[in-house]
Amino acid sequence: MAQVKPSLAKGTRDFSPEEMEKRNFIFDTIKRVFKKYGYQEIQTPSFENLQTLTGKYGEEGDKLIFKILNSGDFKAPVSREKYEASSANLLASLFSEKALRYDLTVPFARYVVMHQQNITLPFKRFQIQPVWRADRPQKGRYREFYQCDVDVVGSESLLNEAEFILMYTEALSTLGLSDFTIKLNNRKILAGIAEIIGKPELLVSMTVAIDKLDKIGFDGVTKELYVKGFTEEDMDTLEPIIKLSGTRAAKLAILKEVLSSSEIGKKGIEELESVLTYVQLLDAHALDFVDIDITLARGLNYYTGSIFEVKTNEVVMGSIGGGGRYDDLTGMFGLKGLTGVGISFGADRIYDVLSELNLFPAYTNKSTRVLITNFDAAFEPMALALVQKIRKENIAAEYYPAPVKLKKQLSYADAKKIPYVVLIGEEEATQNFFTLKNMKSGEQQRLTEKDLLEQLLK
Amino acid sequence: MAQVKPSLAKGTRDFSPEEMEKRNFIFDTIKRVFKKYGYQEIQTPSFENLQTLTGKYGEEGDKLIFKILNSGDFKAPVSREKYEASSANLLASLFSEKALRYDLTVPFARYVVMHQQNITLPFKRFQIQPVWRADRPQKGRYREFYQCDVDVVGSESLLNEAEFILMYTEALSTLGLSDFTIKLNNRKILAGIAEIIGKPELLVSMTVAIDKLDKIGFDGVTKELYVKGFTEEDMDTLEPIIKLSGTRAAKLAILKEVLSSSEIGKKGIEELESVLTYVQLLDAHALDFVDIDITLARGLNYYTGSIFEVKTNEVVMGSIGGGGRYDDLTGMFGLKGLTGVGISFGADRIYDVLSELNLFPAYTNKSTRVLITNFDAAFEPMALALVQKIRKENIAAEYYPAPVKLKKQLSYADAKKIPYVVLIGEEEATQNFFTLKNMKSGEQQRLTEKDLLEQLLK
Repeated sequence: MAQVKPSLAKGTRDFSPEEMEKRNFIFDTIKRVFKKYGYQEIQTPSFENLQTLTGKYGEEGDKLIFKILNSGDFKAPVSREKYEASSANLLASLFSEKALRYDLTVPFARYVVMHQQNITLPFKRFQIQPVWRADRPQKGRYREFYQCDVDVVGSESLLNEAEFILMYTEALSTLGLSDFTIKLNNRKILAGIAEIIGKPELLVSMTVAIDKLDKIGFDGVTKELYVKGFTEEDMDTLEPIIKLSGTRAAKLAILKEVLSSSEIGKKGIEELESVLTYVQLLDAHALDFVDIDITLARGLNYYTGSIFEVKTNEVVMGSIGGGGRYDDLTGMFGLKGLTGVGISFGADRIYDVLSELNLFPAYTNKSTRVLITNFDAAFEPMALALVQKIRKENIAAEYYPAPVKLKKQLSYADAKKIPYVVLIGEEEATQNFFTLKNMKSGEQQRLTEKDLLEQLLK
Repeated sequence: MAQVKPSLAKGTRDFSPEEMEKRNFIFDTIKRVFKKYGYQEIQTPSFENLQTLTGKYGEEGDKLIFKILNSGDFKAPVSREKYEASSANLLASLFSEKALRYDLTVPFARYVVMHQQNITLPFKRFQIQPVWRADRPQKGRYREFYQCDVDVVGSESLLNEAEFILMYTEALSTLGLSDFTIKLNNRKILAGIAEIIGKPELLVSMTVAIDKLDKIGFDGVTKELYVKGFTEEDMDTLEPIIKLSGTRAAKLAILKEVLSSSEIGKKGIEELESVLTYVQLLDAHALDFVDIDITLARGLNYYTGSIFEVKTNEVVMGSIGGGGRYDDLTGMFGLKGLTGVGISFGADRIYDVLSELNLFPAYTNKSTRVLITNFDAAFEPMALALVQKIRKENIAAEYYPAPVKLKKQLSYADAKKIPYVVLIGEEEATQNFFTLKNMKSGEQQRLTEKDLLEQLLK
């Protein structure tokens, strides 16, 4: 075997025991909330047939899909001439028929269509799995990262949207965040705005431009909209909407006035109000976190109703969650008319936020509660009987596997954050007791086996 | 978007909520045992640099590694001439610099070497992640499957081996299996056998041949050994060993006699006896599941000490676990002299065994305990306040999102195995009580909110 200096593939990460404990804290919290609201877990494979994925994420997205080289003689179907004449793009589709999952939404749509006979609607599922993107890696952006998606298909009720707001509130609060904003918009409001200025065909250009308000400011947006074909008069109509501010009620009042002549716009406002009413009925407290943000378009073309985005106000960070309603989730696989709505949590960003705010619970070794030290093979029968008795009580325990210096054994306990150490030496063995050392306080106690077990069970 | 008839990539699977619940039952049980013995979780990325993986699994293994096509213009460095002149194998290494994880052992070795500054030895880690192999899919063999590995590096103590036997016993018993065999062997015993017949260079051929005893019988093995260069006299020496039977003590006695002139053979017996003594001291009951199996070689060349394999005796099935000690785990990445020992659980096979023996706990919806039915929007405030109160008690609850026919709502509860349904109609709303229906017994109770919550908390 050739020796290789080990390295990680670009944009990927290892997770140490300490990092895993923190990551599991996030995943477990989110999962508990998903389940509490009636969502069930599914998983789909890491790779899909290439044609399942291509064409779903736009041209830019397609380029970021990792393709898997066909195994065996992948070269056979492509002659030298064909090789020379083909673009890398075309060749990729000849050399590979599988690709790594780019998100969880498209595989979920495929799942629903393939398993429709066994699914009872509304189908409420969650899915927490890694996805892969051939992005240029940078701080906070990885080529492998987890998505935590929760969606319901087959239910038009806006109660689902309201419950998503509660789920965000409960999960993020439980994780320790106290100041965050769940921004809410509705695609139909955006469509209404485009309608009243008589340019529905420019809806996409308009949403793309006003999505940039935070970054380029009102003047920047105006400039971009002029380029796209909006007039000065259009801008007069748009300005109060783009600059919308005040309470939710104040914003709704302005929107109602501006959009009074647009059926779709009014429908959007009605939907938005229904969502807020449902939240009010379920848990009014959650409304404290909700804001109406008409600039929210998420640059996406497939949302047809509600749009969500979540930001923390405690740290400078992109959105830590988002989602929306898409009226035709499964249409791409031939099953028409099935509405879906869903949100996701950005687990990697949430990890960075909790780190920065120091909100993770203190690192505690979730594996080992007590280490039994190894002085001498002579005391081994006593030590081994004890370690197994402790485990029988469902307490994680270890016996240090070699009679090395005590200092080294204590360093091991320290590094692993093991809270208790049991010492067994000559005195303990002859007088049949155990010395229990609390690694934090340094305190030592002489205990019988029974008392020791009781102490550890506390 | 072109419409695509949805299908799964060959050799991959979706997991439904019911399957996920069963799979999590297996993973959670195994994880609990790992932690109880002091092992901590790590994760490594799904793909590694190609050179990290190639050359580690033998020629056949290398062919089964899924390679990821370089993104962007992967074609650029390979001219038409070079394309024509190169084998698919060579081209693969030009077109791809990354590959999907083939197992968890090699990434773990890379992890240990890269993070050696932050690791306190002995390092006890577990890892439960999918791996990918370009095998021909067949019943029970998939291209994506999970491995559950648990290893310790940096400890020579045979206590580790003994604890692995206890971990197998505890995990498999907890999963409901009652008749399984943990086969134990030691590579040094095999080396001793080759030594006493004076053909140490044929050790690999010999182990490969006797590994097939179950499949081709004693005559088949003999035939293969003759071909490999063993003589009739060698076979006389080997026969009692290959045909070894009886209790562990009886087997050990024969081995000691046959191997009395081989230092390495005696060392192997001594190690094997030490492991058994440790098991005896820890929990003698576990010895009931242990057998010495001298034919056990696992066709692998890298084990240097103990070798394990686990079989169930209740179902016809390949091994459901295995492992061993390798004296130079991290040598391939330049860190010499670090010993490792580990085992793994075959989760997918264990799943099949539990299914066949009907050992899974009854499918219970782990998400939803109670469904509140939706009769009419008029009762919505009452229903929504209730559903949220139930959730505040950490009980998973749903409110059916539309006032469809009751029959449909009950079918939904049924399909999702929701054990309780709350009915809220005219009478309930005016008299301020709730009707709770037990979906299994069909029994209905009139309850106040307080009594309802108490009932659900039971």
